[in-house]
This record gives sequence, C-alpha cells and structure tokens, in this order.
Amino acid sequence: MNYKYHMPTKVFSGKDCIVNNSEVFKSLGTKAMLVTGRSSAKKNGSQDDVIKALKAEGIEYVIFDQVMANPTIACSYQGSEFAKQHGVDFIITMGGGSPMDAAKAMALLAKQNIKEEDLFNGQYSQDVLPIVAVPTTAGTGSEVTQYSILTNDAVESKTSIASELIFPKVAFVDAKYMMGLPIATTVNTAVDALSHSVEGMLSIRSSVVSDALAKESIKLFVKCCPVMCEAIKQDDLSLINESTRYDLMQCAVLAGMVIAQTGTTAGHAMGYSLTYFKDIDHGRANGLVLPGYMAFVEKQKPALIAEILSVMGMTQLSEFRDLLDVLLGESEQISIADVDKYSAKAMLTGNIKANCKVAPTEQDVKSIFMERFDLA
Amino acid sequence: MNYKYHMPTKVFSGKDCIVNNSEVFKSLGTKAMLVTGRSSAKKNGSQDDVIKALKAEGIEYVIFDQVMANPTIACSYQGSEFAKQHGVDFIITMGGGSPMDAAKAMALLAKQNIKEEDLFNGQYSQDVLPIVAVPTTAGTGSEVTQYSILTNDAVESKTSIASELIFPKVAFVDAKYMMGLPIATTVNTAVDALSHSVEGMLSIRSSVVSDALAKESIKLFVKCCPVMCEAIKQDDLSLINESTRYDLMQCAVLAGMVIAQTGTTAGHAMGYSLTYFKDIDHGRANGLVLPGYMAFVEKQKPALIAEILSVMGMTQLSEFRDLLDVLLGESEQISIADVDKYSAKAMLTGNIKANCKVAPTEQDVKSIFMERFDLA
Repeated sequence: MNYKYHMPTKVFSGKDCIVNNSEVFKSLGTKAMLVTGRSSAKKNGSQDDVIKALKAEGIEYVIFDQVMANPTIACSYQGSEFAKQHGVDFIITMGGGSPMDAAKAMALLAKQNIKEEDLFNGQYSQDVLPIVAVPTTAGTGSEVTQYSILTNDAVESKTSIASELIFPKVAFVDAKYMMGLPIATTVNTAVDALSHSVEGMLSIRSSVVSDALAKESIKLFVKCCPVMCEAIKQDDLSLINESTRYDLMQCAVLAGMVIAQTGTTAGHAMGYSLTYFKDIDHGRANGLVLPGYMAFVEKQKPALIAEILSVMGMTQLSEFRDLLDVLLGESEQISIADVDKYSAKAMLTGNIKANCKVAPTEQDVKSIFMERFDLA
Repeated sequence: MNYKYHMPTKVFSGKDCIVNNSEVFKSLGTKAMLVTGRSSAKKNGSQDDVIKALKAEGIEYVIFDQVMANPTIACSYQGSEFAKQHGVDFIITMGGGSPMDAAKAMALLAKQNIKEEDLFNGQYSQDVLPIVAVPTTAGTGSEVTQYSILTNDAVESKTSIASELIFPKVAFVDAKYMMGLPIATTVNTAVDALSHSVEGMLSIRSSVVSDALAKESIKLFVKCCPVMCEAIKQDDLSLINESTRYDLMQCAVLAGMVIAQTGTTAGHAMGYSLTYFKDIDHGRANGLVLPGYMAFVEKQKPALIAEILSVMGMTQLSEFRDLLDVLLGESEQISIADVDKYSAKAMLTGNIKANCKVAPTEQDVKSIFMERFDLA
C-alpha cells in the first residue's frame, strides 16, 4: 500500500499545441538546441512547428539531427559537446524514444562532467539543461518519464539513466505528427505502450494512481485494435485515421506516466536482448514475450492477470495472445544458444531482480523464450 | 481534445511515510514553519510525526497553529508575518483543507509583497516558500492542487488563489491520521472528494488523464459507501476501519489530482454560499446540490451522466440521489430569499461562467436550489 507518485512534466496535448503555446519556450531561455533523427522530424512537420514557434518568440536555435535508432552512449556525448559549443539554454527534442532518450542524456552531460563509467550510477548534481519533448511516435512515453535508455555495448544491452533531473519540463503531444507513420511502426510502438501499462500493473511499485492510468491506457489500446488489425489485413495505412492516431498517442502518454512510477518488469528485461542481438524493434520485442510472461505470472497471481484481461474485455489469456499474434505477425527465430545467453542477461536487470510482483527464475525466463520461439 | 496536464507534487503514500522519508525535509532548508489548526494535528499524531522527522534531520521549527475552519485572508497575512519574523525556509502544513489552503497563501505572502486587493489576480513573481502538505482528512485534495481557497468577506464567498507556485513540493499521505475522525466529518470530506471527481468529469477541462483519475476515485468512494452507511446507521465510528480510511484517502488524493487539471463547476459555485451564509460544511454543501446539478446536465448530455453512473455501478440518477440522502441525512433549510441571493452569487463565479460542459443559467441554478430545499 506504500507508493510514491511523481510526474512533474507539464503536458500540452492537442492539435497545433506547439505553435499555440510558443510562449512556453520563452521561459526556458534565448537559445535552443533541437535534437532529432536524420529525417523524420523534417517529414512529419514537428521540426517546422518547433521552428515556427521559436521564431515567433525570437529564440535562436541550432540543430543536432544525428540521433540513430537505439541511440548509443557515444551519440549522447557527441550531442552534449554540440550543446556546450553553441552555449544553448535548453533542448527541444522531436522524435520517437531514440531522440528523446538521447536528448535527455545530452541535457545532463552538457551541464555535468560525468565519465562514461559513472553515467548510469544515478549520482548527479542538480545541473541539467531543461528539456522540451515532442513525441512523434506513440509508444515510448519518454516525453513523460525520467528515463534515458541507451544502447550500452559494454554490457551488450540497453541501460537506463533514471533521474528526476531528466523529466522533460514540458511535453507537446500532437498526434498529427504520426499521420504518416508506417503500419509496422504504428503497431510496434502501440504494443510498446501496451507493455508499459501491463508491466506497470505487474510491478511491485504499482499503485492506485499508476493502475488508474494503466487501465485507461489499456482501454485505449483495445479501442484502436480493430483499426490496426484491419490496416494490417488490407495493408492500407490510410485506414489509421486521425481519431485512432489521437487515441494511440493518449494511450502512450498514459503508459509513460505509468512507467515513470513503476518502471518495467521481465517483459522489457527479456526484450532488450531481442533488440540488441536480433535488431527486433523494441516494442515488438516486448510484445513477443509479454503473453508468455503473463502466463507465468498467472500461475501465481491469477486475479492480477484476470484484472488486466478484464480491462481489455477478455476472460482468457489466449485471447490476448491471439490478438498480439495478429498484430505482430510471424515471429522471428532464435536458437537455443540465444535463449541461454538472453536469459542470463535478463537475470542481471533490475527489472527482474527488484521490480516484479512475480519474479521469474532464469529457468522460468528460458521456458518463456523456448515456448515463444517454438523451441520447447 | 486539447488539454494540459500538470501536477508536479511528489506524493509519498503509506503508513509512517513522514518518518520513513524524513530526508525529504533536508532538501528544503534548515528552519521550518508548521501551519495547522488549534488542536487536531496534535491529537491525530501528524504533528508528532513531523517533529520527529525534523529532529531526525536536525531541522529547527516554529509552530503557527491559529488556522480556523474556512480560513480568512487576515489569517494568511498573519501567518506570513510569522514566517518572515522567524526567517523560515519552508512550510509544513498538517490538517484538512483549511490549514493547507491557508499555508499556501502564507507561502506566497511570506516571499512577496502582495496587497489584499491583488491577492487573487494571479500576477505573482516566482518567489514562494516550498510547501510540504500532510492531509489529515480525506476530501479537499489540497495536498496535490495549486489552489488556496480563502473566505473572502469582500465578496461574501470563498475565493481561490490559483497558481502553479503553490503546488506543494511534497505531500505525505498517511491514512492513520484519520482514524479518529468523526463520522460526519468523514462523510462530508468523502463527499467533497466525490464532488471533485464528478465535477472534474463535468468540466470543459476534463481530459483522458483527469477522467482516468476521476473514475478510479469514484470507484473508491463507492467501495467505501457500505461501511460509511453502516457507521451512520449504527452511529459507530469504529466501523470505519483502517482499510476504509486508506481507500478514502486515496479517493481524495486522486480527486485532488483531477481538480488540479479541471477545476470545479456549478456544484462548488452553489455550495460556497451554503457554507458562507449557513455554515454548512464545504463537502456537505457540495453534496446537497450535486445530484440536482447532475440532473440538469443529464437533460443535455445524458451519455456523460450515464458514464459517471456506470463507474458507480448505477443506471439511474435516482440511485445516486438516494445514496447521498443516506450519507448526508436530513437537509438544512433555506429561504426563497436565500435562493435568490445564492444563485446571483453563484453566477459570478468562474466555475459556472467558464468551466461547465453544460452551464446553468441563473434560473437553472435557482431551480436546482428550489428543488433541493423543497421550495418548488
């Protein structure tokens, strides 16, 4: 019954919310650094809107558009040097989880000298550049979290900076930037959001507040499934209309607020290796293992899984599995050697060691992988 | 579909959360001012816990325990002078809405010279004493809002300071301080929380986030009703056990998070006069008029009222009215002259003028009062 709730980010949501609230930038300084990937923010209109708002307020800006998918530690240091060179006052990041996560690390590194070996230790002083986040996918929730998740080659996985310092000051949430997002990306990111809400409810840090947000997020995911399934079936992106985009974005923001409280659990711990070694999209990786993990939890806490299924309008876990099968299609293959390696890595994560209401053993993790990838 | 979400207060919830997180005080300064009423914080143990935590951290403190129910503007100025005299770094307030609301005004006035005529104009500089809030009733939600609601004799009503500056930095939510709360106070404050969640859903500023929190809060209220009804019937306070106290406290915190986003509507606007002129407890006043206001909204937006009733497990508004009748008992009496006066006052509030999905006219407000008080 003990919990902590903290989510200080100010969220503006709605069409044209950046341009309509340009005065927000004014309070953060006179020179901004835009952090984004190579092309998507230019195509989806988010960069134009940010620049329009900055010009309206007479704020200078520089652009760092070199963030790759699953951003590296090196990229974060590079961006922080760029920020220092240009003497920027704050950071605006447009993109999916990758630019947002990299931007958060840059905001920290631009103000503090932190060695790479100390980057994930959580021992920081209070200085950080303010961050404004503009999500252009609906999945990660990074716009409302204190996490920067970076590819960490030293441990062949992803590692998180988790610090209240890097909560974005402001998030501008406008679903219009998602209109052209391909079906696969749309589905994968939506499944990422779902995994956040479901894993939030499976976390020892879940609370009445995080569960309220998780349930509403899960309901929005379910509401969007018929449209996503039909778009997959007909291979027709245009079926994913503005209203569905809006709901998916809200689903992701709510789910982000959830993991800001709860963190994630075994689902994410297992997914990280699928992404690191097999280049499987992060949300998809979570979705591939989530039903198996839920089946494992169900053995010890059937009421907990029944509660989640009930929110989805389901009674059986098999219905949930079937839905994800339709959304994710045929699974990739991995080997038994992979299973051993990924399971060992998953067990090293805090997600499993310290965050699950029902924590799997290494053998449990192996069994979930084996069954999922038809190796059992 | 446009909304803003902001609730930066860090909430610690659970038994003994103050003593278990005493280090929180350390980050706020070396001298604290405790703001509370004359006696309740001493009786319910919250003052002892705060002092124990301050001593553990070596923090000095002074006590201002002169806050009355429905606190006045004069009291706020008096407390701010006390804070200045003693050079305190931050404020800790223990109590129901009255001490918390007064403390928020004191935090502002201790750092800024604001004339009484400018107190409610929202034009403040950034200086404010940090506030830690310890609710000892479960109703107001003031521990997670940016409102300080003061009795304003100049307008014969209550008036709000609404500013992000006065969001408490931290709220410590521990239901144990409520264990001895009389039945009537317990019910009135619970009904206040209910009115926050319901009115939040009736506000033009409601959003997917505020509605998620409101629905969970309403469910908790409903969960606690059988116990509250039985305690009323048997006139036995001991029936309101620890688990119910915990649920009521969570209900109130969630509802506070709701009105931090949405504000309140006609229910509160109408209730203020009942409190100002008839000394009817604030939560009770809201509860007396809420079913009538909902019936008015139902005529234009039946789906909205059906959604609220559905969360409560009800299909008819009459069920809701019956429940409140059991909880609140026989109503006070007011005159037709009172109705005219209160209705005119209600129409002057922003709650009605600018915040209702379905805004009543003055005649509508009169009709709701007339029907409620058997004057029709």
